Amino acid sequence: MPFPRIDTPAVLVDLDVVDANIAAFQNFCDDAGMKLRPHIKTHKLPFLARQQISAGAVGVTCQKVSEAEAMIAGDDNDSDNSALGDILITYNILGDAKLARLARLAAKAKVSVVADNVAVVDGLARAFGDAAAPMRVLVECDTGADRCGVRDPDAAAVLAERVAAAPGLHFAGLMTYPPPGRVADVQEWLSEARRRCEARGLSVEVVSSGGSPDMWNLGEMNAVSEYRAGTYVYYDRSLHARGVCDWSDCALTVLTTVVSAPTETRAVIDAGSKVLTSDLLEMRGHGHVLARPDLEIDGLSEEHGRVTGAPTRLRVGDRLRIVPNHACVVANMLDRVELVRGDEAVDVAEVVARGQVW
Amino acid sequence: MPFPRIDTPAVLVDLDVVDANIAAFQNFCDDAGMKLRPHIKTHKLPFLARQQISAGAVGVTCQKVSEAEAMIAGDDNDSDNSALGDILITYNILGDAKLARLARLAAKAKVSVVADNVAVVDGLARAFGDAAAPMRVLVECDTGADRCGVRDPDAAAVLAERVAAAPGLHFAGLMTYPPPGRVADVQEWLSEARRRCEARGLSVEVVSSGGSPDMWNLGEMNAVSEYRAGTYVYYDRSLHARGVCDWSDCALTVLTTVVSAPTETRAVIDAGSKVLTSDLLEMRGHGHVLARPDLEIDGLSEEHGRVTGAPTRLRVGDRLRIVPNHACVVANMLDRVELVRGDEAVDVAEVVARGQVW
Repeated sequence: MPFPRIDTPAVLVDLDVVDANIAAFQNFCDDAGMKLRPHIKTHKLPFLARQQISAGAVGVTCQKVSEAEAMIAGDDNDSDNSALGDILITYNILGDAKLARLARLAAKAKVSVVADNVAVVDGLARAFGDAAAPMRVLVECDTGADRCGVRDPDAAAVLAERVAAAPGLHFAGLMTYPPPGRVADVQEWLSEARRRCEARGLSVEVVSSGGSPDMWNLGEMNAVSEYRAGTYVYYDRSLHARGVCDWSDCALTVLTTVVSAPTETRAVIDAGSKVLTSDLLEMRGHGHVLARPDLEIDGLSEEHGRVTGAPTRLRVGDRLRIVPNHACVVANMLDRVELVRGDEAVDVAEVVARGQVW
Repeated sequence: MPFPRIDTPAVLVDLDVVDANIAAFQNFCDDAGMKLRPHIKTHKLPFLARQQISAGAVGVTCQKVSEAEAMIAGDDNDSDNSALGDILITYNILGDAKLARLARLAAKAKVSVVADNVAVVDGLARAFGDAAAPMRVLVECDTGADRCGVRDPDAAAVLAERVAAAPGLHFAGLMTYPPPGRVADVQEWLSEARRRCEARGLSVEVVSSGGSPDMWNLGEMNAVSEYRAGTYVYYDRSLHARGVCDWSDCALTVLTTVVSAPTETRAVIDAGSKVLTSDLLEMRGHGHVLARPDLEIDGLSEEHGRVTGAPTRLRVGDRLRIVPNHACVVANMLDRVELVRGDEAVDVAEVVARGQVW
């Protein structure tokens, strides 16, 4: 039985695989002349953020103020307090409470944020108008993902000018979360936005793009100076489906036990939506069972997963390891992850940045 | 702006609505002569479990050993330590680690568990063979939900006999998580299983069924002695879709802020899959926006939700309250919930039983 001292369900992180993933993509970025700024929303663990920085990343990306706080706090306990000193929060930050926390963060580290609208810019200007150092702001650009972002390159330049003119703010560049698979269109969009900013006399220091699906296409990203990727540290079933990784690159797995085997073709495991989550990411089924590609996880309730096969050949008490559809959300479900190297359990890590309210 | 001192995203629980929900269903059960055993997986809060017991519930249901531990631990700090003294864990419990914890629980409270296979029964017998008091075991029956459970009434009687004959175990009855909407079939199944148990000389003390979708059909459940419901304490969009509740009965909502409004027809909120979850429960969209039924939440990324409308009429900084698709998984996402009564924030509760590894 694998990992006899780990009870199930458990989220396992294989540090040997993590080490290789961090090194491989950092080397790839270095060879491509691309700065890497890993997104810590995937692991939410300060020690992995430090490892990414040590490998050569220029800083980290966070999606919430609380993630940045957790990284800094986690870092304070370490010997090298400056390791996580450069944090980009890729989120429109609104409201007095979050802005006050952002100001406290900015006193401890080099912090940048994004904005895609005037209300956010004005809020940041109110919060940092009297600050000792200006807050660095990147303009978020919608290059086709239809989420946040200004809608066209001219709007990017207009908002950039507003940032540059605002008290307490420094226009630092452009940021996008691009639609996967449309690299050339995204470059054209960003190049045009840069030209329009420069035509207004604004210097574009950083052009930040991201996303693990296109991470191996950096060579085509001539308009981008800095790349954000999160999932590459663990990979997952969705990235395997896109051809981004092999199963052996998948560092995060869910260890689960068969708790019922009612028929030849159906078994039930102790991993449900409260650990695997219901994220499908346009796939069928709820995870890949390692060493058993013939099995399908075809249904989840909160604490049960239903496994089908023809036949399953599973017995009550058997253990399975599952590569989840989406590692970033699974890493967010439990208070801790089990750190392993190969077949050996080596440590436990508290997922410090999870469960945070804001 | 609603709840100005609560930052977003936040999970709100309206205690006025909770009070009414608990009272209404308890009264309904009392009138129907049905014992109620609420499932605490929905709220994971000891104080609400105590409230359910005070209202008349015979005990509580938990889905994991850690949930039962959290209820007991939470109860220890209260004036009435016996309030949560009767716990049914509706799960096949396997493995030395969990069985040892179950034994510790059984020393503190009246605990019952379920089993649907011989391996689980034998494990329980090993763990409780020398215990001072026998462990109470209900046989889990698959009455059509195709998850766990013995497959036919005769198999239920065969396994019941094995339980009754095992050292340290007491056969306490039958348990099912039934398929919604098939009440009559379920009664027939359970009645036949009872007959077959009794034909073997076994007394069936409890027949436990559950599920919020059929909670108002207790009058048709002539074969059932005890009912488990969880979601009724909060309700949610899925139960509204099934006609089980009104929007005004929905006690759990997600408070969120519009952080971007890129077009007339699209806005972005600060609630994504890490608070609303990706549970669809056969519906379209990711929640119901209170007071704005014209809006659809048509996409989630981890910390963003995409809202569409024709037009949305939303501005950056606006706040929305969302009834999520599935309250039980949303209550599990954040470390705490904000307790409100109407428009007034009254307290904060730590969701003590969430994030537990096992």
